[in-house]
Amino acid sequence: MLYPSSIIEEAVNEIAKLPGIGKKSALRLALHLLKKDESQTINLAQSLLKLRTETSYCVICNNISDHEICAICNSINREKAIVCVVEDVRDVLAIENTGQYNGVYHVLGGVISPMEGISPSSLNIDSLVKRASENTITEIVLALSPTMEGDTTCFYITKKLKELGLKITTIARGVPFGGELEYADELTLGRSIATRTLYENVN
Amino acid sequence: MLYPSSIIEEAVNEIAKLPGIGKKSALRLALHLLKKDESQTINLAQSLLKLRTETSYCVICNNISDHEICAICNSINREKAIVCVVEDVRDVLAIENTGQYNGVYHVLGGVISPMEGISPSSLNIDSLVKRASENTITEIVLALSPTMEGDTTCFYITKKLKELGLKITTIARGVPFGGELEYADELTLGRSIATRTLYENVN
Repeated sequence: MLYPSSIIEEAVNEIAKLPGIGKKSALRLALHLLKKDESQTINLAQSLLKLRTETSYCVICNNISDHEICAICNSINREKAIVCVVEDVRDVLAIENTGQYNGVYHVLGGVISPMEGISPSSLNIDSLVKRASENTITEIVLALSPTMEGDTTCFYITKKLKELGLKITTIARGVPFGGELEYADELTLGRSIATRTLYENVN
Repeated sequence: MLYPSSIIEEAVNEIAKLPGIGKKSALRLALHLLKKDESQTINLAQSLLKLRTETSYCVICNNISDHEICAICNSINREKAIVCVVEDVRDVLAIENTGQYNGVYHVLGGVISPMEGISPSSLNIDSLVKRASENTITEIVLALSPTMEGDTTCFYITKKLKELGLKITTIARGVPFGGELEYADELTLGRSIATRTLYENVN
């Protein structure tokens, strides 16, 4: 596309680097900002810079935090003996929003993926092992996505933690609530029969 | 949603002010920037600030431009006697991409919309009338969206330019190429019959 100005072209190219935003959407966003008050653009730019330069991570669980130790790790109401292992910060938010979990977290920062060049050493697995060997933890809950990468990571972590003799669990997998049985994929349905649970435990 | 950090909350709120981006997408974009190189965020923020503070508009046609007069108005190859009136800069880009137009433009900056509080005085209509009365223009092409606001604006402009005795045309409206006749809406199909053109003029 031919842009009428190099300034707008540069802005469109930068916006289009964001995931899920193409050149057409980027141009729409740029023209939207041009129409709106100058203060909106300044606030947006400053909050992005602040986000990137001032955000810090919790030294215990690696969750994003304003302080050295995040609000969850610092809370006296959370059960510190149970650690839920998640891929990234979005998963912490998703689980927190359910209101069903009262333990603490450990954010890996990704999952093992040889295809994308993500090896165990680039994830926060060593710090998890160190944390687990401090004798204050009784259960590790693996809450990773049921993909090949997620499963590989679960397997790797389980092997690493084996000798510590901890209780290692994973979140339940099966037919989702509200889902029609006939539309569930074969693998999920098959596994959900193989790993059926006692009715009294569910209801 | 509960955010783990006030910095990320602020960034998410600012990003979510953009059209078509909700809080969930905004959080995804913010976490994406956190994962990527710091330079990407800095470039993005700077290009947005530059966009908002340094973009200038062509003094003739009000198109976005790096110079006082835009590349289209400045070109010796464009027919200056034909002026195409459009709503905003995106329409200029859309028409330029067709490669079918060799005249110049006049960007209104919006269409008359009493509902949104956009009156004729807040659009670049006066400058269009001034430009049209300078005797160098022979044809005004109205290329506004076929909505109620677009039609109102066309009507207003036509009334304003009436006494100048210019040729005023509008872009053709009808069944789009590749469109199935039976799926065309009644209004479009009805009008396309009423305003039928000589076959030899089309092919």
